Amino acid sequence: MNITPIGIIHSPFTEPKGMPIQPAGAVGVKGTVEVFSEFQAGLKDLDGFSHIILLYLFHRSEGFNLQVVPFMDNEPRGLFATRAPRRPNPIGLSVVQLDRIENGILHVQNLDILDETPLLDIKPYVPEFDGQIDVRTGWLEKVRKTVSKRRSDDRFK
Amino acid sequence: MNITPIGIIHSPFTEPKGMPIQPAGAVGVKGTVEVFSEFQAGLKDLDGFSHIILLYLFHRSEGFNLQVVPFMDNEPRGLFATRAPRRPNPIGLSVVQLDRIENGILHVQNLDILDETPLLDIKPYVPEFDGQIDVRTGWLEKVRKTVSKRRSDDRFK
Repeated sequence: MNITPIGIIHSPFTEPKGMPIQPAGAVGVKGTVEVFSEFQAGLKDLDGFSHIILLYLFHRSEGFNLQVVPFMDNEPRGLFATRAPRRPNPIGLSVVQLDRIENGILHVQNLDILDETPLLDIKPYVPEFDGQIDVRTGWLEKVRKTVSKRRSDDRFK
Repeated sequence: MNITPIGIIHSPFTEPKGMPIQPAGAVGVKGTVEVFSEFQAGLKDLDGFSHIILLYLFHRSEGFNLQVVPFMDNEPRGLFATRAPRRPNPIGLSVVQLDRIENGILHVQNLDILDETPLLDIKPYVPEFDGQIDVRTGWLEKVRKTVSKRRSDDRFK
């Protein structure tokens, strides 16, 4: 199946190195999501949602390894137990805050995405679908509360 | 960019009609996620997570309309303000509960996915990344608390 970008994400992060590794580490980082004109009719009603899910291509990632040492750890972990960008299908997922929509441009916050990233889909964030409570997070349990301070390095370039 | 399935999702739902429209409506529905052998090394450490995000192909969906009448509503809404399966890039996203992993087979619950759906990616669910509080949900505000009782019909076949 073939994937076609429906827009472009613009962010302050022009290089992978030093960027936040998740939206939780990108609180207040502002950017825009440009939706191509032929898809803008699909944005109707989206401004009622405070948070949206962006699906996008990890366009700077090539290939993958099935075991990786995540940014937040020093041990090799199974790729699917991590959010590393080099994946068999390099599709990224971020929940961001939607501030407003103007002329097909979404103004968003908490953006942990590289500048010029191809957008694949936008979905509304709905707590009943997407939020979970009583969650265990395996190897991340010890480190996840520090994620806001972590920054990426070169390892997944 | 080309997308290649890394596995197959098996569920009790062999037809779109009558299936739950979101995991919240599929509480207790059990199924399995079969990860192809060449990707199974990437499952290491995943069993520490109680919830996982599945990305998959809406393989029974063809084409799309930029305005749709969602299952939970009677008015046309912008496609990107809905979770309808017919999308420019027909990629689905569900958060499911992971019970156990045996021989590359993930046993999961709360499955709102059609049988034989091609799996694209598995990501660990992490509240700090994926959970949001103080959320507005636009047109869904009035209806989302009833989502567990809604079932799909033929409209997105």
